[in-house]
Amino acid sequence: MADIFERLIKNYGPIGQHRERAHGYFAFPKLEGEIGSRMMFRGKEVIVWSLNNYLGLANHPAIRKADADASAAFGLASPMGARMMSGNTNHHEQLERELAEFEGKEDAILLNFGYQGIMSTIDALCGRHDIVVYDAESHACIIDGLRLHPGHRYVYKHNDIADFEKQMERATALIEKQGRGGILVITEGVFGMAGDQGKLKEIVGLKSKFEFRLLVDDAHGFGTLGKTGAGAGEEQGCQDGIDLYFSTFAKSMASIGAFLAGPRTIIDYIRYNIRSQIFAKSVPMPIVIGNLKRLDMLRTMPELKEKLWSNALKLQQGLKDRGFDIGSTDSVVTPIYMKGGVEEATAMVMDIRENYGIFCSIVVYPVIPKGHIIYRLIPTAAHNDEDIERTLIAFSETKAKLDSGAYKVEAIPDMADAR
Amino acid sequence: MADIFERLIKNYGPIGQHRERAHGYFAFPKLEGEIGSRMMFRGKEVIVWSLNNYLGLANHPAIRKADADASAAFGLASPMGARMMSGNTNHHEQLERELAEFEGKEDAILLNFGYQGIMSTIDALCGRHDIVVYDAESHACIIDGLRLHPGHRYVYKHNDIADFEKQMERATALIEKQGRGGILVITEGVFGMAGDQGKLKEIVGLKSKFEFRLLVDDAHGFGTLGKTGAGAGEEQGCQDGIDLYFSTFAKSMASIGAFLAGPRTIIDYIRYNIRSQIFAKSVPMPIVIGNLKRLDMLRTMPELKEKLWSNALKLQQGLKDRGFDIGSTDSVVTPIYMKGGVEEATAMVMDIRENYGIFCSIVVYPVIPKGHIIYRLIPTAAHNDEDIERTLIAFSETKAKLDSGAYKVEAIPDMADAR
Repeated sequence: MADIFERLIKNYGPIGQHRERAHGYFAFPKLEGEIGSRMMFRGKEVIVWSLNNYLGLANHPAIRKADADASAAFGLASPMGARMMSGNTNHHEQLERELAEFEGKEDAILLNFGYQGIMSTIDALCGRHDIVVYDAESHACIIDGLRLHPGHRYVYKHNDIADFEKQMERATALIEKQGRGGILVITEGVFGMAGDQGKLKEIVGLKSKFEFRLLVDDAHGFGTLGKTGAGAGEEQGCQDGIDLYFSTFAKSMASIGAFLAGPRTIIDYIRYNIRSQIFAKSVPMPIVIGNLKRLDMLRTMPELKEKLWSNALKLQQGLKDRGFDIGSTDSVVTPIYMKGGVEEATAMVMDIRENYGIFCSIVVYPVIPKGHIIYRLIPTAAHNDEDIERTLIAFSETKAKLDSGAYKVEAIPDMADAR
Repeated sequence: MADIFERLIKNYGPIGQHRERAHGYFAFPKLEGEIGSRMMFRGKEVIVWSLNNYLGLANHPAIRKADADASAAFGLASPMGARMMSGNTNHHEQLERELAEFEGKEDAILLNFGYQGIMSTIDALCGRHDIVVYDAESHACIIDGLRLHPGHRYVYKHNDIADFEKQMERATALIEKQGRGGILVITEGVFGMAGDQGKLKEIVGLKSKFEFRLLVDDAHGFGTLGKTGAGAGEEQGCQDGIDLYFSTFAKSMASIGAFLAGPRTIIDYIRYNIRSQIFAKSVPMPIVIGNLKRLDMLRTMPELKEKLWSNALKLQQGLKDRGFDIGSTDSVVTPIYMKGGVEEATAMVMDIRENYGIFCSIVVYPVIPKGHIIYRLIPTAAHNDEDIERTLIAFSETKAKLDSGAYKVEAIPDMADAR
């Protein structure tokens, strides 16, 4: 008879298989010092392009003060218990009102964590007769939410509106055949890997052709897109067509938790039926108060978003000018596509990290197809021109080495921390 | 064709259906002031029995100072990103080491939130050929984790070892028939509603008869049971037989987040394969540092647990002496079972809250069968003799009114806050 544990340790998975030589360097690295464009990695200063601190709020003096003051006033334990039982406060309700107003929705519900928040949202919304139609590149938290859904789900090719229509036709036909159930469409405001916006305007436009409700996860759009920073719906001029707007606080807000905004009746329904919130603890008070301050700054300091975009466009234009392929991003998320093996990619990352002092994330096989390399750079309002210039030079030089075969080494050194 | 939203607002669910008159009073009440045995509810002081602040740490001066200092030093934004990508720190690793040592396990992994943490743990452990055997009264987060499991699951009657053996026989037979897969048993250290401990010792004892791995959710046992506070496994003398020990920080630790402790190889596997952690933000630094302080106090101040138990036993003995049915609790969780309709229960809660100043949670139909009422009292180290005495008197008097039919009123007044 088989043992679960024995099976697990036979295969540590796509990233875990490399853990012996990667832990602490390629996986679970420690960035030390104040959050910003320059941090310390293994005792050396690096320019960091891995943090979704879009507006630079994480270490803004006003935020640091708000966080410190709120923690001193309330401690991190308060309130105790789930919102519904004993964890509700005026501050939680105020943040919900302000988020709803900011997003142009009737009401909003705070979620104690984004991942379980959207999972349970999908679970609360959909019954067995409902059908979910969703984008193929949806984030893991959406996929896990769909895994809770007992009914049908149709996936459409990423941002492919022709395929979206095809799947909607299938879904609509099945609903008609069933004689009950409805359709929930789920997509993202900005896809976090490639940086391309979801085609929200096109999807909303198809409400005249199909009957459905639209849930948008705008984790990377909130605070970075739209005139006021309200996100991808505002940017594309179709916010009213988004029935339920979701964002985490983990990116522009540099915090934890999340929210869902929409019609009062539906938010109320969710408030009373969302399992991960009814059966788990409320967001700690200092985090709520800290998020009120973050939202206030996001609304009243447009210069933060302007600086973010100024940096992002400099970085993206600089990369394009140097001949890099940055794909189809129309957000600040900046991927760089290259070709090369896993060993070459590893050697290149070590070179750019150790010798150029550039810390950024990279994705290789088996997460993406063999022979491909994707860097993913996250510019923020905290970066400056020198950060960008040094980074462009580093990429030009390391790309030249990659293309010349300089990184074709025999073996990867063991970079793991002693554990 | 049906609309998802139209269907939802036709039925707001078991609790939501009462929201118009219950919101802000029976559901989503606001307890104000410092966390403790006395707090303010709608402008009046109440004795609170609803908070899982078992050891009284939530508002302990040393904890308040630790939380304030850590927030001042790091802000609430740090670290940014998931542990694996950019959110790892020495403090996170230190807390993992200390938790592992405290639980007598080789290693531990921090989880950014308990609910999604255990869901993804189950998901990471179990493949389609594995079978989960679990207690019927497992918490919602375990049930949601099981909903992600593509393989078979067998539920056994709550704490019924004969039925456990029966389900294990079924599971074992299926594994043998399949020729692959293993069995994961999931139960709890303490069941949070009735307060009875899971039969861990009996289950561990059956490892000589069946082959399985045991995952225990000890949310209510951690810090409250066992000589050192290590939980239900220590209390029952079978900690070594628990393969994976899970607890949230939301109860005794008066914090958020959670951990899983077990063999190093398996914790390492989980570290590299647990979706809700790989794809979501790390626990904020001040919460990690605050939890290090909480763990230190939990370990070094046995007087906190002694005070908790002294209060719990006074409350439980006092209730029993007055003829109350508190069921089969063998933890500090103190249920009180009564008979009566929903309207009577409502009137009784209002009486005990408004006229006796006692704030506690109650469960009625449709959450439990019609005609039954369950109060659930959570004693803590922060309660005192007067709190207990006043509470016993209030329960005696209101129970007498319930039995005399005094709460049989025609209609429940609207207690909802203006919204």
